[in-house]
Amino acid sequence: MTFFPPGAVRFLLHGDEAVLGAALARTPAARPFCEVRHTDLVIAMDAKPAHAMRRGKGTSMWNAVECVRTGEAMAAVSAGNTGALMAISRLVLRMVADLDRPALVASWPTLRGHTAVLDVGANVVCDAERLVEFAIMGAAFHRAVRKSTRPTVGLLNIGTEIDKGHEEVRGADRLLRDNGFDLDYRGFVEGDDIARGTVDVVVTDGFTGNVALKTAEGLARFFRAELRTTLSSGMLSKLGALVASRSLKKMGERLDPSSINGGPFLGLNGIVVKSHGGADARGFATAIRLAADLARSDFAAEIERNLKLRTPAGGADEAGRSAA
Amino acid sequence: MTFFPPGAVRFLLHGDEAVLGAALARTPAARPFCEVRHTDLVIAMDAKPAHAMRRGKGTSMWNAVECVRTGEAMAAVSAGNTGALMAISRLVLRMVADLDRPALVASWPTLRGHTAVLDVGANVVCDAERLVEFAIMGAAFHRAVRKSTRPTVGLLNIGTEIDKGHEEVRGADRLLRDNGFDLDYRGFVEGDDIARGTVDVVVTDGFTGNVALKTAEGLARFFRAELRTTLSSGMLSKLGALVASRSLKKMGERLDPSSINGGPFLGLNGIVVKSHGGADARGFATAIRLAADLARSDFAAEIERNLKLRTPAGGADEAGRSAA
Repeated sequence: MTFFPPGAVRFLLHGDEAVLGAALARTPAARPFCEVRHTDLVIAMDAKPAHAMRRGKGTSMWNAVECVRTGEAMAAVSAGNTGALMAISRLVLRMVADLDRPALVASWPTLRGHTAVLDVGANVVCDAERLVEFAIMGAAFHRAVRKSTRPTVGLLNIGTEIDKGHEEVRGADRLLRDNGFDLDYRGFVEGDDIARGTVDVVVTDGFTGNVALKTAEGLARFFRAELRTTLSSGMLSKLGALVASRSLKKMGERLDPSSINGGPFLGLNGIVVKSHGGADARGFATAIRLAADLARSDFAAEIERNLKLRTPAGGADEAGRSAA
Repeated sequence: MTFFPPGAVRFLLHGDEAVLGAALARTPAARPFCEVRHTDLVIAMDAKPAHAMRRGKGTSMWNAVECVRTGEAMAAVSAGNTGALMAISRLVLRMVADLDRPALVASWPTLRGHTAVLDVGANVVCDAERLVEFAIMGAAFHRAVRKSTRPTVGLLNIGTEIDKGHEEVRGADRLLRDNGFDLDYRGFVEGDDIARGTVDVVVTDGFTGNVALKTAEGLARFFRAELRTTLSSGMLSKLGALVASRSLKKMGERLDPSSINGGPFLGLNGIVVKSHGGADARGFATAIRLAADLARSDFAAEIERNLKLRTPAGGADEAGRSAA
């Protein structure tokens, strides 16, 4: 029997055992923590979610999620096809309470700590009612992961005045103000409030959130490239960079796009974390760390408890649909 | 008669002459280039666009736009109420050809130069046909301002596969592919393609574009704050910063959010540039410089010529509406 130090994470690696075995052979230190579950079936990156649901059984992605359902694994992490992962997770794990679809959440480093932004990709079109669900799930997530007792919540819009934006965000704003949720709701916030850390949780639809997240990742890369160019332009700059190299390296790591990698699907009966498809080893490790942190917390119970604070589904739903 | 060096810009300052006169008294160098046009009527920052249109006559904003119509001014610049400025500009200057509403465009510094992003705030809900108009206007703008002969155009989405995103972007993609525009259309791009400079023009709806722009501004401020903190943490860092100070200062200026300030309204019979409400003096100067550059170019003629390349309005419109 292998000894696992307290807090260690063990892995069930789903995929082709020839490939996974060869990788493990190159990293003997990882072997005691890893167990390969062979399958040579995979979900293609361009597979439709509906196809993945019908034909996905036995693929590496399906098997990973299935292990969460059976309790063999505490969480599943995948860098594969987002739509397929969501569809399989919904089918296998089912949604909590009366939620419709899971939300993807991203944790952003900010001037004040971390801000959770959701949805960042799963729900392209969102009505007011769904945005309210995101607010509840985001607050519960932040409470569980950041140990904050009463996270502040803002709704992403293009201005803070009450008449700004489209009908969906205005409808969600009304619901969040009127329906007596146990949330510290702060009203509308704008794009620059994310990095400012104005609120702990920023709620938006999956299209806007995805664009904002990827725009930020692109800008972070741009900034690092600029800094590199600046500090290698001429003798004095190079010397300065050399002298300050330790601090600069630390900052570079903090601003690394991979430091914000890893988005859990919120609202499932089980933990599934989506890693960015283009993540490197460090980025993927960040996603795994997040999954482990969530597995050790009780955020699922938090979400369920908060959803129960909603007014009876009929009332909220009606208001949500009419606003959408 | 005052002598103006070639290329100098002259200003008609619309507003309260007591306030403007006092400001000019403090900056005698600016006086020969400025003429005050008194009015004590203003458009409030929270005024509704409809109200501004009905009651705006004689306000500083209205007068500034009216001077563009009469030809007294070549361009108007305002940091005021965006919705009101757009409504007054549409009413006073009218739209080019069969365009519906103007688009706000932002110029982003990228790894490869500059990328024009539009719409960044004016049109919150956009159907496929409107996104196509943005593509045409953005390409014309880029051609005029950056002297590029054949700008590349991309449509902002949450993936590059043909079935990604909502119906509006998929519909616009079909129109841009099928309708034989004189555009170098490159298909879908994602948020990180903006800073990467993958294409010269990025097309999106006003809600998404506004959030992306403000997210980027917030992140740029965050980076600068991080860099400042890093380079003042400990003796070695401070020394390094001192040695490399000149390069770092130059980079700071380049990454200043105000360097991307100033968004022209595209599609009007005349030039109107909206400055960010929170812009400082440098940011406002950037907006003025952009207005002057546009006034010296022939981008309006470019847009008109390109719009004429569309298939007969009926056909394009039908396809656009059915896709939306």
